[in-house]
Amino acid sequence: MSETVTLLHPLDDALQLTNVGPGLFRGRTTPAYWNMAGPFGGTTGALMLKAVMEHPERRGRPAALTVNFCAAVAEGEFEVAVRLVRDGRSTQHWTVEMTQEGRGVATTASVVTAAERETWSHRFAAPPPMAPPSDVPELDISQRSGWMTAYEMRFAEGPPERREPAVGDVRSAYSKLWVRDRPARPLDYPALAAMSDSFVVRLLQVRGDIPPIATATLTTYFLGDEAALARQGDRPLIGVADGRQFQHGFNDQTAELWSDDGELLALSTQIVWFKG
Amino acid sequence: MSETVTLLHPLDDALQLTNVGPGLFRGRTTPAYWNMAGPFGGTTGALMLKAVMEHPERRGRPAALTVNFCAAVAEGEFEVAVRLVRDGRSTQHWTVEMTQEGRGVATTASVVTAAERETWSHRFAAPPPMAPPSDVPELDISQRSGWMTAYEMRFAEGPPERREPAVGDVRSAYSKLWVRDRPARPLDYPALAAMSDSFVVRLLQVRGDIPPIATATLTTYFLGDEAALARQGDRPLIGVADGRQFQHGFNDQTAELWSDDGELLALSTQIVWFKG
Repeated sequence: MSETVTLLHPLDDALQLTNVGPGLFRGRTTPAYWNMAGPFGGTTGALMLKAVMEHPERRGRPAALTVNFCAAVAEGEFEVAVRLVRDGRSTQHWTVEMTQEGRGVATTASVVTAAERETWSHRFAAPPPMAPPSDVPELDISQRSGWMTAYEMRFAEGPPERREPAVGDVRSAYSKLWVRDRPARPLDYPALAAMSDSFVVRLLQVRGDIPPIATATLTTYFLGDEAALARQGDRPLIGVADGRQFQHGFNDQTAELWSDDGELLALSTQIVWFKG
Repeated sequence: MSETVTLLHPLDDALQLTNVGPGLFRGRTTPAYWNMAGPFGGTTGALMLKAVMEHPERRGRPAALTVNFCAAVAEGEFEVAVRLVRDGRSTQHWTVEMTQEGRGVATTASVVTAAERETWSHRFAAPPPMAPPSDVPELDISQRSGWMTAYEMRFAEGPPERREPAVGDVRSAYSKLWVRDRPARPLDYPALAAMSDSFVVRLLQVRGDIPPIATATLTTYFLGDEAALARQGDRPLIGVADGRQFQHGFNDQTAELWSDDGELLALSTQIVWFKG
């Protein structure tokens, strides 16, 4: 007797959901996307989005996702409950909650889906100039573990580097890089959602260290359609991240993900809580 | 017998909520903030935020607000239900729903509140250069009604102007202006939340007309603390708005609201649905 072994991509493994009731899904964390105190927020967001996409009443593609990181997700199983709040002619509005037994709500999300359609279009913005991926060295991940090893990152500017914080040594919050899943994987909306959180916390670059820190809430708009994601395939995307203001224990972080032919596929903002 | 008449500011009137049960508030739309097909989204967002702020278990100040405009709000009464999803040590996570009798859910929101605290701080960004408000003419509102008359707007660049759309005539989506409530009113978080949606839809500037259009979801981060809002008082803020990409029936819109002494008080993004 022969066995067929299907090797799942680590992202598809992390995003596996089992439908266990109407609008109710079960999943579990995986070591491949572990972060310091819980799973990588990007995969948590992608799970919230994927649960909506697997709902039988979902029409169209994702247009927007807001993920609220209410509490750390513990290692192990979780449930994701999806509710169709409003089924409009042109858009659907969804709310999603991730809970863990005995721990209450870990994550909430809202999602907007919309039918694909063609309209008047204009692009004002363009990605920053970048040398081709092959000319930009890969970030060395030999000393890293968890989610940071799940991305191939080629920083053209602003790589994540620890250094001794020093008064007056404040560096730019701006980064630009080529980024894709490792191993390479064709782009889809869950992958794009996860990638929108793959920009290392700005404070590390700016100050050189990572104090206790957590994203409070993350919003991603999906501006590229299915065809644009298919055209991009598994090639590296251009990622740009920045932060404007760090004070009162919070900072903003803005990110853009561009196709390699110059289309803005996703625009993302988050507010990051930090201590000290 | 003498009567004392208290004149409420139109914004305070629009944001009046009556507590009618645990976490449950009742309000109604007002003509002062009417928009084309419902109340101004800014006041709807401000109502969602204010309901959280009036909840007895709320600690700290707003840090983030996401408002999902699921359906048009009809003229008349509505209920706002607030739920404290997670009461953490440093942040509280809230969800909010606005419903109207017989019409279901009109609006959902998520809010993050956080205790005021001082930390390491750094500001990378600065507002664009602006002539003082007295040197920038006020937008003429004599031909306008509803919410647009509820703001004093002084556009230094990118005023809202209808024109005949013409092939090839695509103008910048960028605007900068001085903006404040009309009549002037001391700044607070609900006012700031409303103001974050006071930037006229970018498509009007870009193309010259307004097709059927609606904000699908709006996210605002409150980066300024109570003291910064108090310092700003009722003087005009610097507002900046832009849009990057218009396609497939959606465009992004980003906005910044700066104090007149150069602090970024709020950062806002929305995704706008449009037809044609």
